[in-house]
Amino acid sequence: MNRQELVNLIREKQSYLCVGLDTDIHKIPKHLLSHPDPIFAFNKAIIDATRDLCVAYKINTAFYECMGIRGWESLQRTVDYIPSGIFTIADAKRGDIGNTATQYAKTFFETYRFDAVTVAPYMGKDSVEPFLAFSEKWAIVLGLTSNEGSKDFQMQRVGEGYLYEKVLKTTMEWGTPDNLMFVIGATQTAQLGEIRKLVPHHFFLVPGVGAQGGSLKDISAVAMNADCGLLVNASRAVIYAGNGEDFAQDARRAAQEYQQEMAAYLAEKLAVKQ
Amino acid sequence: MNRQELVNLIREKQSYLCVGLDTDIHKIPKHLLSHPDPIFAFNKAIIDATRDLCVAYKINTAFYECMGIRGWESLQRTVDYIPSGIFTIADAKRGDIGNTATQYAKTFFETYRFDAVTVAPYMGKDSVEPFLAFSEKWAIVLGLTSNEGSKDFQMQRVGEGYLYEKVLKTTMEWGTPDNLMFVIGATQTAQLGEIRKLVPHHFFLVPGVGAQGGSLKDISAVAMNADCGLLVNASRAVIYAGNGEDFAQDARRAAQEYQQEMAAYLAEKLAVKQ
Repeated sequence: MNRQELVNLIREKQSYLCVGLDTDIHKIPKHLLSHPDPIFAFNKAIIDATRDLCVAYKINTAFYECMGIRGWESLQRTVDYIPSGIFTIADAKRGDIGNTATQYAKTFFETYRFDAVTVAPYMGKDSVEPFLAFSEKWAIVLGLTSNEGSKDFQMQRVGEGYLYEKVLKTTMEWGTPDNLMFVIGATQTAQLGEIRKLVPHHFFLVPGVGAQGGSLKDISAVAMNADCGLLVNASRAVIYAGNGEDFAQDARRAAQEYQQEMAAYLAEKLAVKQ
Repeated sequence: MNRQELVNLIREKQSYLCVGLDTDIHKIPKHLLSHPDPIFAFNKAIIDATRDLCVAYKINTAFYECMGIRGWESLQRTVDYIPSGIFTIADAKRGDIGNTATQYAKTFFETYRFDAVTVAPYMGKDSVEPFLAFSEKWAIVLGLTSNEGSKDFQMQRVGEGYLYEKVLKTTMEWGTPDNLMFVIGATQTAQLGEIRKLVPHHFFLVPGVGAQGGSLKDISAVAMNADCGLLVNASRAVIYAGNGEDFAQDARRAAQEYQQEMAAYLAEKLAVKQ
């Protein structure tokens, strides 16, 4: 999916919600466990219940990888089930050099046909560029994350600024707003406005809303740009909103609350452009 | 495998060679392609030919992941085939937070039963610690890598030193020489001696010997400690040493050259201790 299609999708659906399918076999409703593929059964129900409310699904690959081959089968079925026209993100945080990075890009862009994959920046340019060589595919590079450990390295001073600022400024030169996004943690609202000034045009994937505690209102106020420029992810807050037979309706209600709030922020921000 | 067992293994085999199974379907001898699992057939032959000469095998997961479920089957068969008593490394460079990191640790330590997994440090303490919580398992954290892109961030100044030094010093406090190693690129021999002073006791996994160009002699001279403290990886230089029907013998010859050279360096260094 290219940038214009993504922007159109956001306007049509009045939503910049990304639903995170961090599906944990230990957390899904018990009645699904008799299904031959409980993880897929859960994801299918969540997708059916939220597909008109979100613009993206993000699959956290760790939850699938830990189940071995069975997990990859669930992942494959899930990606195949996501309707075309919805943006798909492999949250895999891969990072390796040259030929190995190309293998990872092929994995997520060709073998599984995701639109985007999250990428770790520590190894530098030759670990990111291979992901930028695929037409209408995206690398989403870790900028500033929302966890406690972001202080250990990302927030160390490098020259005039922080390491994460160096990462953003340097990485921006390797790609364009058409093939590169950044992960920017939502619990860091203070920095989010500054980051938007530094990176005016790129999309940000913002995790950490809901269960992890960021405020959608604050994020939207400081980081939305003229094309929206945001994909705000909610995982647990949506997919585990309920735990009974009607878990999918509970997930829909949670997603709908986000979508309605987003519609209001979009209307404010984009009014001039419509 | 614990540290003492690894040190014993190095002394018994007179080797600190790690053979990297970066097995690429496009590079293996053509006659293997009729095998139901050509990747495993190749790895099996390489393992049979080198198992007495090396102390570790490193599987670069990207080469398996890009083949989808079939690739994970080849990976599983390969790990299962590696004889017990040889150290196994998943070169997966994972890096994510908290619960997700735990899922990755389970993937490589429990689902596939590797001894060690490579880990990216960018997200900080809560992305590394979950890997250190498993008994007799290892996190191998990226310190200084051997690629061109290592200059982009790893070699940026942070306070008095470089980012990679900050990463080494900080990460050392999270684990011990019994559960934590570092990836230190071999093309950076100049820094390797300095890094050994900074990190005297931990094992280093040193990629970049052979096809990538580092000198085994230089590395061993500056970075070996009293317990050896080195796992030196060769991938292409061993596994693609030949490309005919007798590729495994060619691989054996290449591995044997490394092993014999290593035996000499070990004899010099460890003579006092034996």
